[in-house]
Amino acid sequence: MRPGGAPYGLVPEAAVAAEDGRIAYAGPAAELPEAWRDAPAETLGGRLVTPALIDCHTHLVFGGNRAREFEMRLQGASYEEIARAGGGILSSVRDTRAASEDALVESARPRLRALRAEGVATIEIKSGYGLTVADELKMLRAARRLGREEGVRVLTSWLAAHAVPPEFKGRPGDYLDAVVLPGMEAGAAEGLIDAVDGFCEGIAFQPDEIARVFDHARRLGLPVKLHAEQLSDLGGAALAAGYGALSADHLEHLSENGARAMAAAGTVAVLLPGAYYALRETVAPPVALLRDAGVPMALATDCNPGTSPLTSLLLAMNMGATLFRLTPEEALAGVTREAARALGLSGEIGTIEAGKRAELAVWDVAHPAELSYRIGFNPLHRLIASPAP
Amino acid sequence: MRPGGAPYGLVPEAAVAAEDGRIAYAGPAAELPEAWRDAPAETLGGRLVTPALIDCHTHLVFGGNRAREFEMRLQGASYEEIARAGGGILSSVRDTRAASEDALVESARPRLRALRAEGVATIEIKSGYGLTVADELKMLRAARRLGREEGVRVLTSWLAAHAVPPEFKGRPGDYLDAVVLPGMEAGAAEGLIDAVDGFCEGIAFQPDEIARVFDHARRLGLPVKLHAEQLSDLGGAALAAGYGALSADHLEHLSENGARAMAAAGTVAVLLPGAYYALRETVAPPVALLRDAGVPMALATDCNPGTSPLTSLLLAMNMGATLFRLTPEEALAGVTREAARALGLSGEIGTIEAGKRAELAVWDVAHPAELSYRIGFNPLHRLIASPAP
Ligand SMILES: [Zn+2]
Ligand SMILES: [Zn+2]
Repeated sequence: MRPGGAPYGLVPEAAVAAEDGRIAYAGPAAELPEAWRDAPAETLGGRLVTPALIDCHTHLVFGGNRAREFEMRLQGASYEEIARAGGGILSSVRDTRAASEDALVESARPRLRALRAEGVATIEIKSGYGLTVADELKMLRAARRLGREEGVRVLTSWLAAHAVPPEFKGRPGDYLDAVVLPGMEAGAAEGLIDAVDGFCEGIAFQPDEIARVFDHARRLGLPVKLHAEQLSDLGGAALAAGYGALSADHLEHLSENGARAMAAAGTVAVLLPGAYYALRETVAPPVALLRDAGVPMALATDCNPGTSPLTSLLLAMNMGATLFRLTPEEALAGVTREAARALGLSGEIGTIEAGKRAELAVWDVAHPAELSYRIGFNPLHRLIASPAP
Repeated sequence: MRPGGAPYGLVPEAAVAAEDGRIAYAGPAAELPEAWRDAPAETLGGRLVTPALIDCHTHLVFGGNRAREFEMRLQGASYEEIARAGGGILSSVRDTRAASEDALVESARPRLRALRAEGVATIEIKSGYGLTVADELKMLRAARRLGREEGVRVLTSWLAAHAVPPEFKGRPGDYLDAVVLPGMEAGAAEGLIDAVDGFCEGIAFQPDEIARVFDHARRLGLPVKLHAEQLSDLGGAALAAGYGALSADHLEHLSENGARAMAAAGTVAVLLPGAYYALRETVAPPVALLRDAGVPMALATDCNPGTSPLTSLLLAMNMGATLFRLTPEEALAGVTREAARALGLSGEIGTIEAGKRAELAVWDVAHPAELSYRIGFNPLHRLIASPAP
């Protein structure tokens, strides 16, 4: 996945040398440096090797599930009826508040394992269903523990600005003052926050409220990212770019202005076809505009209990190609090189080159396009990775 | 999944008793007959138990794959360019003809195992990429062998009337005379054919040609089914119903007439959301009409290298709910009770009741709606099945 050169940066008859978890050499086997020729080696049988995959946008930790709400909707229930039956995001908030840290870890574990079984070694996990300082921190502690216990690199995002909880209904500013900002400080002090995120939308937070969150993150030295332009265009992407955001995510309703601002700031577009699919949206993100403006594009599962109960990054790749018309090469870059960039980890992971961490996925396929082409099939032969934080 | 009674036919605190591979009792544990109380027993830990799943429409056996064509299309190639590069269904015909029976078995094995890993114990597999007598029979022999070697019940369909091969271009009648009809006889004599199928479409065979195929099947005592009304309405479903077809499949463009004819004949509607998704179709099958007319609905993967490289029946359930608006209960019935009916196996499998085969899927879920709600997740705890043919 090194940019430039052959499609996919593909090297036939290649060798990778690694020491202490870092790549020392990657390239043609014939050019392997002398010093490595007698090192202990193993063959991967001519299989395709890619960087280990990276899921750069998930809400993997939550209480309960929303299968009953899914069923009610398909049985014809209205949104009011679902809300009256306790459905919607607030049902996930209720179930997450009720769950212990242990329970959150155990319920998320099979989801994390499903991702890892597809060659995913790095997973971003957001808070956002607790909506109190204690419950948001509980979610991030569960996320950190999952990473340690399962040998997966977990990056955490503080997403207290996900929804206004019932006890602050109509008072988003008070919620920021009482929960989002002080919780961010407490989490940062505990080393629980790798980035700060928000949901900028009519049904969530306005741009000026997001700006307050981002100002606070800047004071604490934390990078930011934003759920932007998913259902409407509030200018969230340009706002995020103005703060040098790592990424702006969703982007179905992104304007040309927003795309140019992202390109200038180096902000990655994280596309989330699982939510587009599950919500039966009809407006896709402007991929041609993003390409034209030179905005890097990542792909992620958005794994969450409401709008994208998706635990397959390979399926997100297929959906990115099928529904958003990404090429298979863009889809693979989107879950490796560009996903690393969306997490601020470009120097560490996402490509196979000297100096980066030796985290490799080995596949039983003849050509990398097969990874996007198949639907609901996992051709992983082996994941080689022992992620350090 | 017994019809009537509680949703899903769900029985809490249930017991199943089985002997010699057949169910002797299924119902409340409290009502387990005396005679079974001291039989060797095991607990399934309060998990959900459903009938083992049934994938009633696949093209699982084929040579090669079409990932390169998938990539060319996403890179903007026209259909002419793809055809010139050797793409399309004829590339699968070429690769299937070039493959030995052994090679067909080995390439299909991981696909079959992916389905079985989701609790699928019965799989229908069609011919249709050989298009010579020898190559069509080779495909069905490979299908039978897969079933034996993998311990899965495989039902075969003779689909020589899938496409007109290049050597018969413009002469479909000659192709029927030289390949489809004599091959059907040879295959029936060898015990290779459980049903006869056809593709009724402008780009494939006309209704009068399909009628010749079905007349021949009737003479040989073979049940029929049909790919009908996928891209246009040629009246294929009514034609099939007139022959008492087990199923008519796809049906995006089904007319009210066609639905009434299917209902009267007891012909099952097999819905294939994988192809609808991959082809980005916008006209969904008329589910409300099918419900209203009382046509039983099944769901299947349509696993094939061109229009549905899908090897997850759970994902077909999610797509059936998300894209076609089936309820989760209809989706589960579609891969159990109604799929059995589409294969003529209603008396043997598809529900958990006394007299049927003891083929059970045990799931780590709290409620059956979760099987359709999740996307790309496999909660199978265990498949209990040793299918006899
Ligand atoms: Zn999200
Ligand atoms: Zn088919």
